[in-house]
Amino acid sequence: MSGSDQSTTISKEARAAGVLVKNAYGKSRVRLTKLTRLDDRHVFKEISVDIELQGDFERTYTVGDNSKVVATDSMKNLVYVLASQHPLDTIESFGKSIAEHILKTYKQVSSVHVRLVEELWQRILVNGKANAHSFYGAGNEKRIAEVQGTHESIEIKSGIEALKLVKTTDSEFWGFIRDQYTTLPDVKDRIFGTSVSLEWSYRNANPDYHTAYDTVRNVVLECFATHHSLAVQHTMNEIGQVALARVPDIQEISLVMPNEHRIPFNLQPFNLENKNEIFITTDEPFGLISATLKRS
Amino acid sequence: MSGSDQSTTISKEARAAGVLVKNAYGKSRVRLTKLTRLDDRHVFKEISVDIELQGDFERTYTVGDNSKVVATDSMKNLVYVLASQHPLDTIESFGKSIAEHILKTYKQVSSVHVRLVEELWQRILVNGKANAHSFYGAGNEKRIAEVQGTHESIEIKSGIEALKLVKTTDSEFWGFIRDQYTTLPDVKDRIFGTSVSLEWSYRNANPDYHTAYDTVRNVVLECFATHHSLAVQHTMNEIGQVALARVPDIQEISLVMPNEHRIPFNLQPFNLENKNEIFITTDEPFGLISATLKRS
Amino acid sequence: MSGSDQSTTISKEARAAGVLVKNAYGKSRVRLTKLTRLDDRHVFKEISVDIELQGDFERTYTVGDNSKVVATDSMKNLVYVLASQHPLDTIESFGKSIAEHILKTYKQVSSVHVRLVEELWQRILVNGKANAHSFYGAGNEKRIAEVQGTHESIEIKSGIEALKLVKTTDSEFWGFIRDQYTTLPDVKDRIFGTSVSLEWSYRNANPDYHTAYDTVRNVVLECFATHHSLAVQHTMNEIGQVALARVPDIQEISLVMPNEHRIPFNLQPFNLENKNEIFITTDEPFGLISATLKRS
Amino acid sequence: MSGSDQSTTISKEARAAGVLVKNAYGKSRVRLTKLTRLDDRHVFKEISVDIELQGDFERTYTVGDNSKVVATDSMKNLVYVLASQHPLDTIESFGKSIAEHILKTYKQVSSVHVRLVEELWQRILVNGKANAHSFYGAGNEKRIAEVQGTHESIEIKSGIEALKLVKTTDSEFWGFIRDQYTTLPDVKDRIFGTSVSLEWSYRNANPDYHTAYDTVRNVVLECFATHHSLAVQHTMNEIGQVALARVPDIQEISLVMPNEHRIPFNLQPFNLENKNEIFITTDEPFGLISATLKRS
Repeated sequence: MSGSDQSTTISKEARAAGVLVKNAYGKSRVRLTKLTRLDDRHVFKEISVDIELQGDFERTYTVGDNSKVVATDSMKNLVYVLASQHPLDTIESFGKSIAEHILKTYKQVSSVHVRLVEELWQRILVNGKANAHSFYGAGNEKRIAEVQGTHESIEIKSGIEALKLVKTTDSEFWGFIRDQYTTLPDVKDRIFGTSVSLEWSYRNANPDYHTAYDTVRNVVLECFATHHSLAVQHTMNEIGQVALARVPDIQEISLVMPNEHRIPFNLQPFNLENKNEIFITTDEPFGLISATLKRS
Repeated sequence: MSGSDQSTTISKEARAAGVLVKNAYGKSRVRLTKLTRLDDRHVFKEISVDIELQGDFERTYTVGDNSKVVATDSMKNLVYVLASQHPLDTIESFGKSIAEHILKTYKQVSSVHVRLVEELWQRILVNGKANAHSFYGAGNEKRIAEVQGTHESIEIKSGIEALKLVKTTDSEFWGFIRDQYTTLPDVKDRIFGTSVSLEWSYRNANPDYHTAYDTVRNVVLECFATHHSLAVQHTMNEIGQVALARVPDIQEISLVMPNEHRIPFNLQPFNLENKNEIFITTDEPFGLISATLKRS
Repeated sequence: MSGSDQSTTISKEARAAGVLVKNAYGKSRVRLTKLTRLDDRHVFKEISVDIELQGDFERTYTVGDNSKVVATDSMKNLVYVLASQHPLDTIESFGKSIAEHILKTYKQVSSVHVRLVEELWQRILVNGKANAHSFYGAGNEKRIAEVQGTHESIEIKSGIEALKLVKTTDSEFWGFIRDQYTTLPDVKDRIFGTSVSLEWSYRNANPDYHTAYDTVRNVVLECFATHHSLAVQHTMNEIGQVALARVPDIQEISLVMPNEHRIPFNLQPFNLENKNEIFITTDEPFGLISATLKRS
Repeated sequence: MSGSDQSTTISKEARAAGVLVKNAYGKSRVRLTKLTRLDDRHVFKEISVDIELQGDFERTYTVGDNSKVVATDSMKNLVYVLASQHPLDTIESFGKSIAEHILKTYKQVSSVHVRLVEELWQRILVNGKANAHSFYGAGNEKRIAEVQGTHESIEIKSGIEALKLVKTTDSEFWGFIRDQYTTLPDVKDRIFGTSVSLEWSYRNANPDYHTAYDTVRNVVLECFATHHSLAVQHTMNEIGQVALARVPDIQEISLVMPNEHRIPFNLQPFNLENKNEIFITTDEPFGLISATLKRS
């Protein structure tokens, strides 16, 4: 029961057709929990790590020679082993140590990409006091980091994924193109619902990652709440500008914001007026708006 | 292009085989946003409603006679229309009004079940002050209500769905059966991760739904944090008992708690010791524990 | 760092409030692949198993005494061990052997429920010939079995989950109640999209599970295609009746069918006519229809 | 209740920080069903469309001036309107017509990207004959197309997403790096499970999209079944090479294949031998392998 003969036939057919111009491989969803037992409290981190390598791996593809291949299972082991030796103070520094370790250990790797997604947990309050070892999950929102490394340089980005927001006024959308495809009315007061994802790079080597994260997250919440929005784009630009203004460490910031529509329900067939109060909540279709702002 | 002829053939074959012993139908995922504009702030509610009817609907099944059928599209309309006329102070009272309205309007309905799932939103703080019209999403956790009504009675249940929790100590599991299928070691100190869902009924007609909900949610957080757990079951019973003790309005409470395992990563092959610090986070398989406690 | 003191306080408060009236626990999502190497081909089975036990487990809940508890980790082991000794010809017989083994081994178990979900794989055809060891995934549809056992009896159900179907004609819906909540027009020709789930029980002890499954699945496809539908309910009844007629082993059959609406897109604002051709595909809200038919 | 004052303050702070270096917006998940009524049968297409525009839209971001903005709601309308006028024979040609129409109509658009995802439906067989108007869903696998257009040129790619495959032999993995992070044994016979996604571009303007798609899909199935695999990478290269060899229209092909591990269950603690028969099915972590091959 072997497919070898057929395989050989096919391989001859295939031999001359193309050339491998790009290749990459790695391990995804290495899920790690690290518990650090301090004297007065426990620190609980839950992280999912993706690693992707590029380098001198062509012969695995072309002839099945795995002699330069780091098994993805070994990458998984490496994550847990490094986690046991790293303080895991920030996902950025942990990701950097993974990238550096791989580049140092495996010379055939020309480039490594590490993506880290951190679950957010909050301490449970008991009688108003933060409990030392108990946490509740803070939702879909994640904290993320991306590390891109070569033998020459390491670049680090930080981010927030899927921070869900809604505001019920101070949002307009009008003055857009009105032509044969337009049925949307001009609106001076609409619900603005979104789920912000954003990512930023740094302009110096050792930024304070926690401060950058905390400040950007506050900027998102505050700008979203207080900006008088004339378009999703308009608010997005405001968030990016204020983040650059308040966090000098940031070099560039990219934002993606879906426009999660609430559609006024038509009450006229029921002889009722909808005073901008009753809406259909929808998931799709949705607008999708993005922007990148660079420090000027 | 009609399937009628074949259909007739099949129908003859089918005619005598069985009898319809149970039927039900309705509309699911009617998603509603209601915005209430108070003088000093906006109240924002986002609810998904499922309705299911039972009653005198057999002829729709047996001969396609829809004369007693309330179209599920009409049920959807009814939800939005009632939402425009109801304060939506609690999902329990809104669900009750839907059930009562359906029973009053459609005599052929013998029983109606309404399930309401409320998204949880928190006000954004700007400079420490709750914003009047801006909110962030509070995660996967939901507040739920179920209303079961007939022409004789209405029963209401309230609940919490998927409140994600983890504690890093004060959790043991040992002394269980040790036989040919047992490989799990006794553990005196383990991570206990779960996602609590619970639902309770009331022993009087007009309970204070908000107080019951707030109190039960606090009991879950506090008991989980402070109970010295000898098993998931043990903590679950504690939560149920304390909820019954603190909320006199509750008659019965049911809890479901998965045991979301963190498995110690074996560092021995790497000549390292895992001092109960490094874990593999897993989704499956998972334990699933449930209990119902009734006021004694 | 112990919560014991607080725990004790709470326990006193909780002690007298309620009584445990129902409890159950088990392991979910035990995912198993079994490969059987026949002379001429490989048989590949992929199954997810959920086990739930009821019985004499109260003391685990009330005082954390686990002496009668079968660890859910042991249940997981038991599934893999039994799989190595069972032919896995049908999920029904495998589920039955799990249930029987648990009841025989653990006298404190009064009732066991096993649910098995089988992924469907098809052999890849190479030059028109079924390959001996290669398969492609057959989609979301699953084959399922449920075994409910006590020390007195074992009941087995078989089923199909999420068989996705659509028909583009031979489906009407009209003559339903037209009142103040009705905006849906009568329709003589509509798209009917659904995703059928159904489950049946048997009237004798050793039915031919494969024949029952194959026949029911064909009945679903054929009836759906050829029945002239006057309502989702109408087609559902037809499927149930024909399944009972064609599979004498079946005692009772339950069906659930969502009505996954395609909504005609309004082309009038664009001075075009929609000749029942262009539709918005939607996931929600959806109708949800169910029925149970018993052999008469 | 206006945020205008705060907004003004923030805007001043933000004014000089950064410059908008990239922007894009559009509509996602425009879900369309088109039914074409031929004389002898119905053709049923279900497609989800994403559109993204780049161009002269900066003032929307910077000052909320929407005068050049095509509302995403209008994009949605445009999809349905064009669908009513297009044969929808292939998603590639439909996507191209959308891109061309947008570029022609809106001069401020410099670049448009259209992504189309087609659900796969199969005709139901009744007594061995394909039914004229009834279909069943063919699973998670999708057919996709991507159109990237500017005022100068249009590029089209076709693809397959998530074709789920497993083979139970003819798959080895050994000879990889064995160092301090390696615990994976060399394996001469393993289960190889994956879910192939691939995408290809064309080297001429009017390729036969259906033939290309059908041929590539067959190549994937056949190569996967018959290739004697020494690594996921090895099989992936074979698929790419054979696709290039058999479909002269293709210029470049990119593949992504997760390695969905089945892990042998350790039966030793139960005094049983696992003869490569019993496996734990896992979703995570997973290997992730990619490659791009260009016609040489």
